[in-house]
Amino acid sequence: MDGMSRWEPNASERLLGAALSLYRENGYDQTTVAEIAERAGLTERTFFRYFGDKREVLFAGQGRLLELYAATIAAAPEPATPLDMVAAALQAGTPVFEERREFGRQRQAVIDSHPELQEREQLKRASMAAAMTEALQRRGVTELAASLAAEVAAIAFKTAFSRWVRDPGAPRLSQLIEEALAELRLLAAQPAG
Amino acid sequence: MDGMSRWEPNASERLLGAALSLYRENGYDQTTVAEIAERAGLTERTFFRYFGDKREVLFAGQGRLLELYAATIAAAPEPATPLDMVAAALQAGTPVFEERREFGRQRQAVIDSHPELQEREQLKRASMAAAMTEALQRRGVTELAASLAAEVAAIAFKTAFSRWVRDPGAPRLSQLIEEALAELRLLAAQPAG
Repeated sequence: MDGMSRWEPNASERLLGAALSLYRENGYDQTTVAEIAERAGLTERTFFRYFGDKREVLFAGQGRLLELYAATIAAAPEPATPLDMVAAALQAGTPVFEERREFGRQRQAVIDSHPELQEREQLKRASMAAAMTEALQRRGVTELAASLAAEVAAIAFKTAFSRWVRDPGAPRLSQLIEEALAELRLLAAQPAG
Repeated sequence: MDGMSRWEPNASERLLGAALSLYRENGYDQTTVAEIAERAGLTERTFFRYFGDKREVLFAGQGRLLELYAATIAAAPEPATPLDMVAAALQAGTPVFEERREFGRQRQAVIDSHPELQEREQLKRASMAAAMTEALQRRGVTELAASLAAEVAAIAFKTAFSRWVRDPGAPRLSQLIEEALAELRLLAAQPAG
């Protein structure tokens, strides 16, 4: 068996683990793709089969998450308001994060330490809102309401995730998402002064 | 009078006008600071007295806008809910944009055409939310509610501004902001299905 066509079990997981360790030990800027591949016991060629660049390693899996969000919105049983639908989507995605809390915390610390990674994170959040907007429109929600509900969902997620990942004593992510959405509803419900 | 200490009237406005024309004519990537200064009849040294780089020209004046937002929130008469306060802040800022609608439209077209500028725009939006969050906290609003209200304001502004700048037949910016906030309140007020 030569190295060219060898199937590598869990290659993407191994690369992600190696990248995260190296980013934490030596810094993101100082780490090369060659080092990540070596630490994972794989080749650079294998790295680039999975990821476009060394930023992208930290954001892999987003495509599947967006598909899950879109599918949950498409399948939400009637009657459901736009906020119900985005709330259901966010909740459907929480196990993905809950399963790997310590990983999530380490990953966030690396992102927070580097503006280039923060920019990529912003971009990923924008695609999350765009995916939800489209899914809501397919459910017959107007463009304005769909885009606002999707942005509200993105805020609720960002707020909840940030609390969850930074505070070791924080409750479950699903509960924090519920709290953020409840607080948003409360804010909006307060009669003008 | 030598050129070293000469006071140049409206230097920053002239540089902005020159930059915008050149970005539209030749593209953002192709334009140099030297060309912007030349078109404005000024020196590169003068350019860098006002702006850190050629991105920043398009985002000048944000500091004053954030001060206006913070001052409006600080001065909002009681009783005022967090959403009332951020709504008042956004409305206080609209004349800045209304006065220069055609400029705003051209500026947005340049930003939309270049990822590097879109990233800077995202960053500016984040500072807007951060400034409002701080101002709300100084009014006694809890951190969670302050940050959510500020993010809601940022969404309302983004949505309204995007409609205003892209659709020549759109109503006034202040009205679009009101509509976006009203739609957000409506979304949040719908009882769960």
